[in-house]
Amino acid sequence: MEKRKRVEVCFTPGGYEYFKNDFDIVIVIDVLRATSAICAAFENGVNSIIPVPTIEEAKEYQKKGYLAGAERKGQIVEGFDFGNSPFSYMNPEFRGKDIVLTTTNGTKSLDVAKDAETVLVASFLNLDAICEWIIKQNKDVVCLCSGWQDNFNLEDTICAGAISDYLINTGKFYSTEDSSIAAKYLFQSAKKSHLGFIKSSSHRRRLKNLNLNKDVHYCLTPNQTKVIPILKNGKLVKL
Amino acid sequence: MEKRKRVEVCFTPGGYEYFKNDFDIVIVIDVLRATSAICAAFENGVNSIIPVPTIEEAKEYQKKGYLAGAERKGQIVEGFDFGNSPFSYMNPEFRGKDIVLTTTNGTKSLDVAKDAETVLVASFLNLDAICEWIIKQNKDVVCLCSGWQDNFNLEDTICAGAISDYLINTGKFYSTEDSSIAAKYLFQSAKKSHLGFIKSSSHRRRLKNLNLNKDVHYCLTPNQTKVIPILKNGKLVKL
Repeated sequence: MEKRKRVEVCFTPGGYEYFKNDFDIVIVIDVLRATSAICAAFENGVNSIIPVPTIEEAKEYQKKGYLAGAERKGQIVEGFDFGNSPFSYMNPEFRGKDIVLTTTNGTKSLDVAKDAETVLVASFLNLDAICEWIIKQNKDVVCLCSGWQDNFNLEDTICAGAISDYLINTGKFYSTEDSSIAAKYLFQSAKKSHLGFIKSSSHRRRLKNLNLNKDVHYCLTPNQTKVIPILKNGKLVKL
Repeated sequence: MEKRKRVEVCFTPGGYEYFKNDFDIVIVIDVLRATSAICAAFENGVNSIIPVPTIEEAKEYQKKGYLAGAERKGQIVEGFDFGNSPFSYMNPEFRGKDIVLTTTNGTKSLDVAKDAETVLVASFLNLDAICEWIIKQNKDVVCLCSGWQDNFNLEDTICAGAISDYLINTGKFYSTEDSSIAAKYLFQSAKKSHLGFIKSSSHRRRLKNLNLNKDVHYCLTPNQTKVIPILKNGKLVKL
């Protein structure tokens, strides 16, 4: 029998140090909204997305003529035309373009993960597609939740729990960390209604205050695309 | 109507910075096994426990004639007669004594919490007693889980979830953080069988390998004592 592979869940970018050297594949998750927006962008024909950690770097690219988006604390940063709303990326003018993006949490976790062998971007939008691809690789996987300012958040954890639940159910993967076991339990509790379970989530409440209910509903609806964004030489492209 | 008070859950000592300035009462939790051992010690008549962060400090006290315990990675440190097994503290010779203790995770969280107005020690053993006392105080509370080497662990989180569930059910407390909501859900999933739920927990597996099943069973059995250990001038005493 083939040896089973590990799938673990890391709750925050700050906790990634502990997992760093043990996994071939890192799956970066920022459900509300960076990795959902990235999936939506590729589904809609964007050529590449360059994630940058700072607003200053995004501005540099903007000066060079790139389309650049910037979000901080759920809002579009002044001087930019879009942030991390998935609906922004459905603009037909974005097709075939290279886009630069900086966000509060999502680009930070892409940055800490960047030296791994394979770095993928996941959200509820491409859940089954990413799991099916992972199963074929036969490698150890860690789901890296972006969290909220380096704190635990529910929506990323539940998405990571959904991925590990899917992989473990094949019989080809196992988890050992308490964080992974908790994520799987939280996903199982949430299964019947993603939106219902995390309606009390603090980040969702923040987005609600910003009138972004439409975004939240979209980001929590699984399997709207089969695209798998992958990090290649500092750029996200379609696998 | 009286304004409701907050009860939140912090998963690790490393995450405490975020909660630090907003809470009057900190409840330190290290179910396997430091805070369980501390509760057992006071139940059995110990006078005080001096928590120290390093083995060197514990040795200094030992030289001065104190009874001193030291645990690292689940085992008694060489040169010490006891570690953090609750059963060690049931020794009749410990009655009325002042004891020094250093442990892998538990004394670290006592150390980060030490400047709060009130610092209490909780475990499953004194669950109802601590909740009943808290309700009378009408103050904001944070449950600080000790975790495992600054990573999330299940048993501390479920104990914290039990405390917040108890407090919220009175109608006098509320939570806003995602970590607190997750802890409450995990506790509710675990309610029927503490031991069953965390049988897959990584720390429990570590203890099992050390033949400490009896300790684990004891530490997961709620309400065996009414003592509430409180930190006063660097010493834990009975409230």
